[in-house]
Amino acid sequence: MDWRRFFNECSKNRFEDSAIASMMKIASEENAMSLAAGEPFGDLYPVEDLKNTFMKSISRELPIWGYSNSRTGVPPLRQWIADWMSGDGLLPEWVGAENIFITNGSQEGLYLLCECLLDPGDKVLVESPSYPEAFGIFRKFGAECLPVPLTDKGPDISVLEGILENNRVKFFYTIPTFQNPTGFSTSDEKKRQVLELARRHDFLILEDDPYRNLPFELLPGGTYIKASGDDQRVIYLGSFSKIIAPGLRCGWVAAPGQLLEKLVKIRIMGTLCLPELIQYAILEFVRTVDLPKYLDDLSRTYRLHRDALVSSLGRHAQPHGLEISVPEGGFFLWGRVPWIKDMQDFALFAIREEKVALIPGRDFFLEEGVGMDTLRLSFSKVTPLMAEEGGRRLGSALSKFRELRDPS
Amino acid sequence: MDWRRFFNECSKNRFEDSAIASMMKIASEENAMSLAAGEPFGDLYPVEDLKNTFMKSISRELPIWGYSNSRTGVPPLRQWIADWMSGDGLLPEWVGAENIFITNGSQEGLYLLCECLLDPGDKVLVESPSYPEAFGIFRKFGAECLPVPLTDKGPDISVLEGILENNRVKFFYTIPTFQNPTGFSTSDEKKRQVLELARRHDFLILEDDPYRNLPFELLPGGTYIKASGDDQRVIYLGSFSKIIAPGLRCGWVAAPGQLLEKLVKIRIMGTLCLPELIQYAILEFVRTVDLPKYLDDLSRTYRLHRDALVSSLGRHAQPHGLEISVPEGGFFLWGRVPWIKDMQDFALFAIREEKVALIPGRDFFLEEGVGMDTLRLSFSKVTPLMAEEGGRRLGSALSKFRELRDPS
Repeated sequence: MDWRRFFNECSKNRFEDSAIASMMKIASEENAMSLAAGEPFGDLYPVEDLKNTFMKSISRELPIWGYSNSRTGVPPLRQWIADWMSGDGLLPEWVGAENIFITNGSQEGLYLLCECLLDPGDKVLVESPSYPEAFGIFRKFGAECLPVPLTDKGPDISVLEGILENNRVKFFYTIPTFQNPTGFSTSDEKKRQVLELARRHDFLILEDDPYRNLPFELLPGGTYIKASGDDQRVIYLGSFSKIIAPGLRCGWVAAPGQLLEKLVKIRIMGTLCLPELIQYAILEFVRTVDLPKYLDDLSRTYRLHRDALVSSLGRHAQPHGLEISVPEGGFFLWGRVPWIKDMQDFALFAIREEKVALIPGRDFFLEEGVGMDTLRLSFSKVTPLMAEEGGRRLGSALSKFRELRDPS
Repeated sequence: MDWRRFFNECSKNRFEDSAIASMMKIASEENAMSLAAGEPFGDLYPVEDLKNTFMKSISRELPIWGYSNSRTGVPPLRQWIADWMSGDGLLPEWVGAENIFITNGSQEGLYLLCECLLDPGDKVLVESPSYPEAFGIFRKFGAECLPVPLTDKGPDISVLEGILENNRVKFFYTIPTFQNPTGFSTSDEKKRQVLELARRHDFLILEDDPYRNLPFELLPGGTYIKASGDDQRVIYLGSFSKIIAPGLRCGWVAAPGQLLEKLVKIRIMGTLCLPELIQYAILEFVRTVDLPKYLDDLSRTYRLHRDALVSSLGRHAQPHGLEISVPEGGFFLWGRVPWIKDMQDFALFAIREEKVALIPGRDFFLEEGVGMDTLRLSFSKVTPLMAEEGGRRLGSALSKFRELRDPS
């Protein structure tokens, strides 16, 4: 039976394939060393502590087996998140536990926000480059994505102003801290400028902030949501995925009450509730562990990974034209190879010839033909030993690819 | 700040409130004994076994902490479900592990199916009465629900035929076994008639089957999906919520490959993946426990609950005009009180005067003014001791309500 006649317009036309997932699949099939995966280093999952916190949470007489009474997530975890973020100076006065909504990872938060906000034809500002799985969500809801070029200090304000003169936009989606894919952070000065424009042109800001707690040098700047004060125009997306374990699927949204009411309705319609055992176990974990030390240890390891990969690339790949920018936190290095016309061709070549995988930067751009010579390298799962070998393979692939292209 | 200007058309107009949830909230505030809740009896959650299965699953070196490699759910659980259902003769040849898609409860399965299938203006057949949270989903996607009267043998075929002569419909949503709210089961003969109509008029069947494993007398009839053979027109929704614990949020969809591909894309967009620890723990549970005995014990307890409530109602409430139909499985008794004009008024009266809660049957109907004298009583959480008291309170409330209405 051909099912196509039953699919709706959206699933027929607006369910996109993930270019990153396709590249990862090829890399895995070819058994290539991955400098591509945007996920935590497996050795850093706090498995022993999590075992204990799950045991404890199960052993307590917690109301985890029935349907949840709270569609927003378990109250003490929401309180802990509000207190933690407030303690770090990241939240404005109006955000309390009642404004925190627990999600199945940040991805679900972003999706549910779009369920409440986006009409077909709406316009959405995105950083260029940015996280393509977000573009996919926006387009699924029929929105048009307007790219704002991203510099190493944040979005290009003059381009942003130009766009806003000619377009009414619903929101600006931004990853202001150690961005995916660039590793760039938006300066606090730029945040103020963007907020000023948001007020003048009356759009919202969706602040996606999963990497904030993995800084390598100084602490990152402030949040948009704090800087916005009491105008309640910023929605914050947080996540335990990068700092505890993505397999637990736990993130949160901080949002004004009027929006939270809508999120609750879509929660009930779409899933009724989420598994609370996981939320209690995470609460137990963050309460039990020495969190500042734990996070510091994570950051220290990722900094070692970054340093090793930067050093290896400097020795093996930079001689063949790779230029990189060194990030101050997070998981990613952003780079370019000016003599490469289409990084996709090189990426496939590198996987097959030298068994090393990267993500072509063009997958993170909306604009046709932009960023064709760029690439994203992830150091999160790359140990210093792997970094040495990975850099060597990448350098060798570059050398061979240049040879093929320009055999003179 | 007034957020209304940012909400989309759907969240402004098509995010409905749940009438059942409102009634439960009033009942809880008034501290009423609940004959209203559609959830398992808390004492039956296999807490000790679940503790062990979670411990074991965490202790094993399972890939539960990182992002899932399988967007469809963990392969061995999918295999177990396919084997289990096939072993019970519930699946046609074409369904294997590759057709099973794990969901955050059946509710998510239903929602994701609608994400793939429904366009605004589509027409959907529903049983009348039926599960109102499903109506809410269909209407959220802009579909029109067409009610088909339900008898104690299944949908009224002649009405169905009449509707199909004048309407092109996308699917028929049915709970064929121990239905919510009626407890009715559709006979295998009716299933064949509905399937025949589905083929002739080319619509799909969504078979929502969470109560199947809780029979009180004979085993329930077959499934639509098995009866449909190889035409792949039936999508099956299964759930561990009623037989293990709803707080774990684990259900499944059995669907043809073409639809499964769409479900995978919406899974990635909407949530990336679900927490796999839970799926492994459930797998461990169903493999470890003596499942036939375990299910038999559950059914036995629910039958005791049913019998006690039926008996108590017979003594205390039937003399005041309550008529009930006795279900052969599941959680619910369906009834009516012919002299009551609007059960909503009586429900509020009973909560406030006698501290006993029920759900007005009209909340399960789409048609204005239909079922005004009907009610749903849930016995799942009602022990024999509570049943005696609950019946007494209900009888007393009926007596007082009649007095008020007709003081002669």
